[in-house]
Amino acid sequence: VLVRHHYLSLDPYMRGRMNDGKSYAQPQPLGEVMIGGTVGEVVESAHPRFRRATRWWAWAAGRNTAWSMPPARRAAQGRHHPCAAVALPGRGRHARRHRLVRPGQDHRPKAGETVVVSAATGAVGSAFAALAKARGCRVVGIAGGPDKCRYATEELGFDACIDYKVHKDAKPCPRRSRTPAPRASTATFENVGGWMLDAVLLRMNAFGRIALCGMIAGYDGAPLPLAYPALILVNRLKVEGFIVSEHMEVWPEALKELGTLVGSGKLRPRESIAQGIEARPRPSWACSRASNFGKQLVKLI
Amino acid sequence: VLVRHHYLSLDPYMRGRMNDGKSYAQPQPLGEVMIGGTVGEVVESAHPRFRRATRWWAWAAGRNTAWSMPPARRAAQGRHHPCAAVALPGRGRHARRHRLVRPGQDHRPKAGETVVVSAATGAVGSAFAALAKARGCRVVGIAGGPDKCRYATEELGFDACIDYKVHKDAKPCPRRSRTPAPRASTATFENVGGWMLDAVLLRMNAFGRIALCGMIAGYDGAPLPLAYPALILVNRLKVEGFIVSEHMEVWPEALKELGTLVGSGKLRPRESIAQGIEARPRPSWACSRASNFGKQLVKLI
Repeated sequence: VLVRHHYLSLDPYMRGRMNDGKSYAQPQPLGEVMIGGTVGEVVESAHPRFRRATRWWAWAAGRNTAWSMPPARRAAQGRHHPCAAVALPGRGRHARRHRLVRPGQDHRPKAGETVVVSAATGAVGSAFAALAKARGCRVVGIAGGPDKCRYATEELGFDACIDYKVHKDAKPCPRRSRTPAPRASTATFENVGGWMLDAVLLRMNAFGRIALCGMIAGYDGAPLPLAYPALILVNRLKVEGFIVSEHMEVWPEALKELGTLVGSGKLRPRESIAQGIEARPRPSWACSRASNFGKQLVKLI
Repeated sequence: VLVRHHYLSLDPYMRGRMNDGKSYAQPQPLGEVMIGGTVGEVVESAHPRFRRATRWWAWAAGRNTAWSMPPARRAAQGRHHPCAAVALPGRGRHARRHRLVRPGQDHRPKAGETVVVSAATGAVGSAFAALAKARGCRVVGIAGGPDKCRYATEELGFDACIDYKVHKDAKPCPRRSRTPAPRASTATFENVGGWMLDAVLLRMNAFGRIALCGMIAGYDGAPLPLAYPALILVNRLKVEGFIVSEHMEVWPEALKELGTLVGSGKLRPRESIAQGIEARPRPSWACSRASNFGKQLVKLI
């Protein structure tokens, strides 16, 4: 099939691929077009099951059109989830959010638990919060600036949000933020790393779990030391890093659950859309650390 | 029963109790006698089931004799394990070693896996190594100085041992030690923390597990920052802190397995015994970081 890509997804992992270090992702070869998540539609087809106008998602180079080979088991997913908000903003992201929820019975956030989410207003954090709220958790976000914090509590459903920009390091954070986060947290969905992870460690309950989804604080090459790793021992914490693409088995369930949340209005993904790839050439944009909210997209046509 | 204590066990956790910080253990109150693991014998009894000369272990103040109230379910254990090497050197230690082995099916060291053990020649590390060897693992130790490393490989059964004293920090460690530890490790039993844990992180395989049993590098109050926590994410590691006393359910099994290893000569615990508590008043002795080998004991009578 020949696919016309309508949207390209910009995500923090792309910045990681620009480093020439050992990682789970192949470094981006110089002089080649970056690959990213796309959604679009079939404009030509030589395949009996996929007609023109079929919605299409892919990992593809950021170009307007590309030939694509339909994998055998794609059909059902493509038809059951026409909603772009669920099907696109990185299917990866959806599964990621589920990792803390579904690694095993005893790790699932339970009703009444306090769950902390860093990079709270990003595409990952906001969807994770919706999932945790649907399970009855108290969800506390960490975000940068009063606008994002207000957005978190007023639109995304967070019970509280801590503005990390009013703190310089981890130490005063737990004290000053006593009002929004009076209870220590039992589970953390960590996307940032660095001193923010230290701040989280200082407020974790005994036997707490930390799902390490990302460390965007270090994507520009800054060192990411941790000052209080001894708290992992003192508080008998579980810390686990994970990569979404290695948990494909939970994707169908994740898509269904997220689709339900979007359909019922409990998850209202916000998108920042740039017109054309020339509009936003700075790689830091993908990390959404500045003025952008929610999912970062580029409209290609 | 009135018990005469023959031996007092000195252990790293005692140093931790001398800090006035929040921890899993109560801080030691000033002016009171330190509590520790003891073995001894009953010298007077008002209890029908425990006669004179019954072997006795307890958590007790480091005094020669003390009255003790027999708990209901102690009897069997006291009689089935007369071997001081198994019954004493901290029953806690035995369960600790089992924690990495028995948290769940998928976490057990499997035959052929490379397992790294820091503080390798200590009471904990050496017994853990014997258990891992019995399961067919390749066991690499980390210890301080050529004497301890030779002891690890020649007497304790380690396949290799890295002398951390020839390294100044984590970075050169993996390169220089290519000969003794050519393969990256899949599981680590960590007792030290600090840059040695960084060195371990730099050599962990993807999906590796780190059981965090102790962080003796920080027991004197030195800060214990971690330089490469991002590797937990990059390599999708599981890191888990645990405290032996919270896993009592594995103690009977641990005692049986360790008893078998001692009985068959596969585990030959080495003890450093001081005569009288006055002989070794320095708290650093309990951390066995200097010239002592194996389990640290004080003979009280």
